[in-house]
Amino acid sequence: MEALDYHAEERRKAEFDVEEMKIVWAGSRHAYEVSDRVARIVASDPVFQKDNRTMLSRKDLFKDTLKKAAHAWKRIIELRLSEEEATELRFFVDQPAYTDLHWGMFVPAIKGQGTEEQQKKWLPMAYKMQIIGCYAQTELGHGSNVQGLETTATFDPQTDEFIIHSPTLTSSKWWPGGLGKVSTHAVVYARLITDGQDYGVHGFIVQLRSLDDHLPLPGITVGDIGMKFGSGAYNSMDNGLLRFDHVQIPRDQMLMRLSQVTREGKYMPSDVPRQLVYGTMVYVRQTIVSDASSALSKAVCIATRYSAIRRQFGSQNGGPETQVINYKTQQNRLFPLLASAYAFRFVGEWLKWLYTDVTERLQANDFSTLPEAHACTAGLKSITTTATADAIEECRKLCGGHGYLSSSGLPELFAVYVPACTYEGDNVVLLLQVARFLMKTVSQLGSGKKPVGTTAYMGRAEHLMQCSCDVQRAEDWLNPSVIVEAFEARALRMSVACAQSLSKFSNPEEGFAELSPNLVEAAVAHCQLIVVSKFIEKLQQDIPGKGVKRQLEILCNVYALYLVHKHLGDFVSTGSITPKQGALANEQLRSLYSQVRPNAIALVDAFNYTDHFLSSILGRYDGNVYAKLYEAAWKDPLNDSVVPDGYHDYVKPLLRQQLITARL
Amino acid sequence: MEALDYHAEERRKAEFDVEEMKIVWAGSRHAYEVSDRVARIVASDPVFQKDNRTMLSRKDLFKDTLKKAAHAWKRIIELRLSEEEATELRFFVDQPAYTDLHWGMFVPAIKGQGTEEQQKKWLPMAYKMQIIGCYAQTELGHGSNVQGLETTATFDPQTDEFIIHSPTLTSSKWWPGGLGKVSTHAVVYARLITDGQDYGVHGFIVQLRSLDDHLPLPGITVGDIGMKFGSGAYNSMDNGLLRFDHVQIPRDQMLMRLSQVTREGKYMPSDVPRQLVYGTMVYVRQTIVSDASSALSKAVCIATRYSAIRRQFGSQNGGPETQVINYKTQQNRLFPLLASAYAFRFVGEWLKWLYTDVTERLQANDFSTLPEAHACTAGLKSITTTATADAIEECRKLCGGHGYLSSSGLPELFAVYVPACTYEGDNVVLLLQVARFLMKTVSQLGSGKKPVGTTAYMGRAEHLMQCSCDVQRAEDWLNPSVIVEAFEARALRMSVACAQSLSKFSNPEEGFAELSPNLVEAAVAHCQLIVVSKFIEKLQQDIPGKGVKRQLEILCNVYALYLVHKHLGDFVSTGSITPKQGALANEQLRSLYSQVRPNAIALVDAFNYTDHFLSSILGRYDGNVYAKLYEAAWKDPLNDSVVPDGYHDYVKPLLRQQLITARL
Ligand SMILES: Cc1cc2nc3c(=O)[nH]c(=O)nc-3n(C[C@H](O)[C@H](O)[C@H](O)COP(=O)(O)OP(=O)(O)OC[C@H]3O[C@@H](n4cnc5c(N)ncnc54)[C@H](O)[C@@H]3O)c2cc1C
Ligand SMILES: Cc1cc2nc3c(=O)[nH]c(=O)nc-3n(C[C@H](O)[C@H](O)[C@H](O)COP(=O)(O)OP(=O)(O)OC[C@H]3O[C@@H](n4cnc5c(N)ncnc54)[C@H](O)[C@@H]3O)c2cc1C
Ligand SMILES: [Ca+2]
Repeated sequence: MEALDYHAEERRKAEFDVEEMKIVWAGSRHAYEVSDRVARIVASDPVFQKDNRTMLSRKDLFKDTLKKAAHAWKRIIELRLSEEEATELRFFVDQPAYTDLHWGMFVPAIKGQGTEEQQKKWLPMAYKMQIIGCYAQTELGHGSNVQGLETTATFDPQTDEFIIHSPTLTSSKWWPGGLGKVSTHAVVYARLITDGQDYGVHGFIVQLRSLDDHLPLPGITVGDIGMKFGSGAYNSMDNGLLRFDHVQIPRDQMLMRLSQVTREGKYMPSDVPRQLVYGTMVYVRQTIVSDASSALSKAVCIATRYSAIRRQFGSQNGGPETQVINYKTQQNRLFPLLASAYAFRFVGEWLKWLYTDVTERLQANDFSTLPEAHACTAGLKSITTTATADAIEECRKLCGGHGYLSSSGLPELFAVYVPACTYEGDNVVLLLQVARFLMKTVSQLGSGKKPVGTTAYMGRAEHLMQCSCDVQRAEDWLNPSVIVEAFEARALRMSVACAQSLSKFSNPEEGFAELSPNLVEAAVAHCQLIVVSKFIEKLQQDIPGKGVKRQLEILCNVYALYLVHKHLGDFVSTGSITPKQGALANEQLRSLYSQVRPNAIALVDAFNYTDHFLSSILGRYDGNVYAKLYEAAWKDPLNDSVVPDGYHDYVKPLLRQQLITARL
Repeated sequence: MEALDYHAEERRKAEFDVEEMKIVWAGSRHAYEVSDRVARIVASDPVFQKDNRTMLSRKDLFKDTLKKAAHAWKRIIELRLSEEEATELRFFVDQPAYTDLHWGMFVPAIKGQGTEEQQKKWLPMAYKMQIIGCYAQTELGHGSNVQGLETTATFDPQTDEFIIHSPTLTSSKWWPGGLGKVSTHAVVYARLITDGQDYGVHGFIVQLRSLDDHLPLPGITVGDIGMKFGSGAYNSMDNGLLRFDHVQIPRDQMLMRLSQVTREGKYMPSDVPRQLVYGTMVYVRQTIVSDASSALSKAVCIATRYSAIRRQFGSQNGGPETQVINYKTQQNRLFPLLASAYAFRFVGEWLKWLYTDVTERLQANDFSTLPEAHACTAGLKSITTTATADAIEECRKLCGGHGYLSSSGLPELFAVYVPACTYEGDNVVLLLQVARFLMKTVSQLGSGKKPVGTTAYMGRAEHLMQCSCDVQRAEDWLNPSVIVEAFEARALRMSVACAQSLSKFSNPEEGFAELSPNLVEAAVAHCQLIVVSKFIEKLQQDIPGKGVKRQLEILCNVYALYLVHKHLGDFVSTGSITPKQGALANEQLRSLYSQVRPNAIALVDAFNYTDHFLSSILGRYDGNVYAKLYEAAWKDPLNDSVVPDGYHDYVKPLLRQQLITARL
């Protein structure tokens, strides 16, 4: 029997080699093979099944998560998976768990901030998961403003210990993932106080629970902070609260790579440059950008496949109705998101390179590119996560009513994704940091100091302030250098306009505060330029495979022209393009949609996602949507009985007009 | 003991009479008094408590909903509430239930489409809730395209009955609220077939369940369609599926006001004008716009109050940090949403008037304003619900990490609200209808046919196509006639540009399809003009109360200038304003924020929402956020035990390196 494939016709239409595109998407043949193999291992394992997740109670969901985490670890050991493979396995298990924080924050914090000795002591235990750790920074009262944390770590020279204490309600640790129910240890951030002086926030390794019976150690109050957005979603995570009542820890559990406290209680900065910590930040944010492309591509894959199955209106002479993917409004909402998924993928790949570059420079004591790298990763984290969160919800709306069902996969994807806009730096706070960096760069333009990396274009300020866009016909917008120049002119002119407005304030901080909405927009313009440029640079590489490069060129143009249309006000009011050119961009964009259309299904197939990973009936590879929706409905607990629980108490007396006399 | 009020200082700052503003918000003193009284009745009743809703399993949530619905009905009877009061009571109970569809769709469908005889037979039972009904239109395969429904109602002259049947899987009814578990009856939409001919979709009253034991009647398969977005939220509703296997109903259960089938099986249109059905549509959409202002104002109330409590950064000399509501970026995100809540409130109020007007005209057989009223309500439904859905999520983000907790109230508000973008007409499909109407209006401009109502401005095309905006200084933007002209010019020019592009296509339908993204934007511009105009018209009324009108003028300007900035590309590229004028608008907007700031808390207090209704710790009236967040966390079932379920099976063996040997 032939396998059912409602998308077969669509797949035949593709004008490029999907297998080759899979490799481009994965980043390399090796990466493709690893992820393909590991994804199948996960998908075929009944323990990792997740299609009933949104129906579980909090407790059952949490227990299920513990089971999956243990099983994942077991499989990692049994299959002798490499670190790369183990990371992929956790990725495909696709259920937030304490292990994310253990591997993603606890271990890196010790690596980045611990001395060699400390690393030698703690890392082997962490690697074997003999201890489980989390990252306890945020408090009830302070998140963005890390310097305002209130937890104290007071050195007691008598005992050679730090006393960790929560002096106020708002100093309670609040949010750390994995803290609430699982972690045995935490890296706790607290104000270091020694000899009566407050040296600001530092990291400390603190044991929270007994390794014998898992009970909290004396002086420690720990628990879960409660339900979060959605069903399933991030509720599998035990984000926790934590209070200390004068908890003592040995002095050597302060992470001492960057500064130390001596036996006598003297505070000493080490000779390791402080900038080193930026390396970790670049690393973490790079993973967030790459996660953005994953989440976005999942949503786009679901909406694209369903849009090809869904038919509504337009039947002619009793024939089939129009696939909704053929409506230009649907394309205008969907295809730019498809293009964004690819754009974020490639900028994420570039950030991996940037991280290596930064690391090598740090090792050579070259800190010159750090501020730029730091601003760039902060900005890219911000714009890609904001765009992805919005896009997931748009994809849900693109699926009409059925997108509102949990079984579409989109509600849970949204709920689990949106905190990425908040953690690792609130997106607006991050853009303000980028803006600060841009203002500094602009102010130094005259000084002969050459802007580097992603700000290099600012060095061509003279040209960019007065150049005009050459587009005369719609097709002229297909020229990459035309696009880049328009984005550069827009970004630079917005920054310069802000700098000019700022200079009118006698107090620059006041000016910055007053103009902050404009500054945020200038930062967005700068960051969008980076994404567009990196996409274009990617296309300058050799990309094998029939038609593959051609498709990517189309998507790159879609992404850029979509932004031109979306931010037309910026482009036109800075004079970077004329209204007429804006209209031509939009015209060109519409005609590109027709080129994307026949390749749309193949372009999402290239993500190579298993049905397990997508966990969406609307996004099924075979397109068998209706039969499976119908089947899934019956699994809801409400359908256990035809007459619902509560009928006799609350419906029957109402129908019979016996409510007043009934005892409810 | 004085009541705790962390907002006391903020409340003192208000420059207007909050009690008078409450009356403006409610619409009248009478409406204020009713809603105030009923809200308190609900808030003080333990049965209506809802703060643990997101923690309930689907079954428990549903049972809780049945209980609340029965209790609400009991209280309505006991307190002898009027229809107005009863509606308010259900509104404040604030938990989607089958009663919404019974009162909101089933009863109106019979009223609108039933003959007098049919109304006499069915309405008394429905009014007493001796039967419970739902509205069964959408099928698995068809939602937007109602004419494509597949369920059949075939007349059998032998028995004088219709045979209702689901011929395909995709013909299964799917989505109707209240259908899955509760409704005893439904208005079912099906293709009427008599004498071998298909007369298209008509409504039929069908009994689904036995009134004795609530079991489905023979031939009927009915169930719930499963979990939807979020926890709590719309999962309290039994959206259902329904299949018919040749179910027979008497002929007189076809709703026969607009057309009839005789005893002999002859199809006969009645002499009642078909346009009458539009009245109901205007009514339903008017309620949706008013719901938009409610949902939006809830979200804004929460985010505004919390933004005044939350302090982050900016401590000087150890003093308190800056309230985040003082950051211009926060204001720039929040205050336009506050202004939108008021804007939507007033346009909703105007729609109520429009409904009365349409009804009166219909009774006088005057159908002249119907197409315009229809387009206008469709468009307003679309833009207000889209804006509200986006705004709720923005309000959540404005609350930083804590906005992600269920106890902030915002996740559930979002999840329960978003389907409003899809039901009662998918928002994009609706805008395409508006665009069609606009194109028709433009095409008739030369013909001497005067555009009426909300399109009257198009009659001044000659002026609006060539006028230029007079703004020279930022304050010039405070002039309402300047604003209206700019919005009119933008809207008209976008419509005319679309019409001109359309005229280049030999096939107008092809042109419409190709240009649909532009057409949708023109429709949005038109609808935004309506909201802005109605806000301005409202301000031409007498509005008593110290400072009340002044505040509303500020909010009206904020709303309009926010739109100018957001859609700057439209305004500038149509030449409705210059880039310089766009920058002045933005400058004026920022300075308006400073005027909103001291009144922000009072402006959300004016919504007069109880803490029960808001159901948000961040939005508490007294601002006691941190202590209550901490308290609430402990109620999560995960905190029932210090050591979590699953520790012994899944965590301990992992920590002890005994996973491989453990039986998981
Ligand atoms: C799912 C999730 C997981 C998390 N995991 C962890 C974890 O493992 N460990 C950990 O330590 N923490 C964790 N956090 C906490 C997270 O890091 C913080 O929530 C985040 O840093 C944002 O800080 P905040 O909540 O204080 O937001 P706030 O700073 O309070 O933001 C509130 C509002 O104020 C605005 N604002 C703040 N400052 C400024 C300013 N200077 N200028 C203009 N506007 C401003 C923001 O833009 C926002 O709109 C997690 C959070 C979430 C939601
Ligand atoms: C919570 C909820 C409650 C509901 N309650 C009820 C109820 O009580 N009774 C009932 O009968 N129904 C109910 N519905 C169903 C609801 O009315 C439909 O979901 C709605 O009409 C949208 O139709 P659809 O789902 O078929 O979307 P589709 O039409 O399939 O939309 C899918 C996509 O196609 C696009 N599209 C469709 N047609 C066109 C076109 N011509 N041009 C361009 N784009 C197009 C849409 O914009 C959308 O992006 C409910 C739905 C929900 C979510
Ligand atoms: Ca003028």
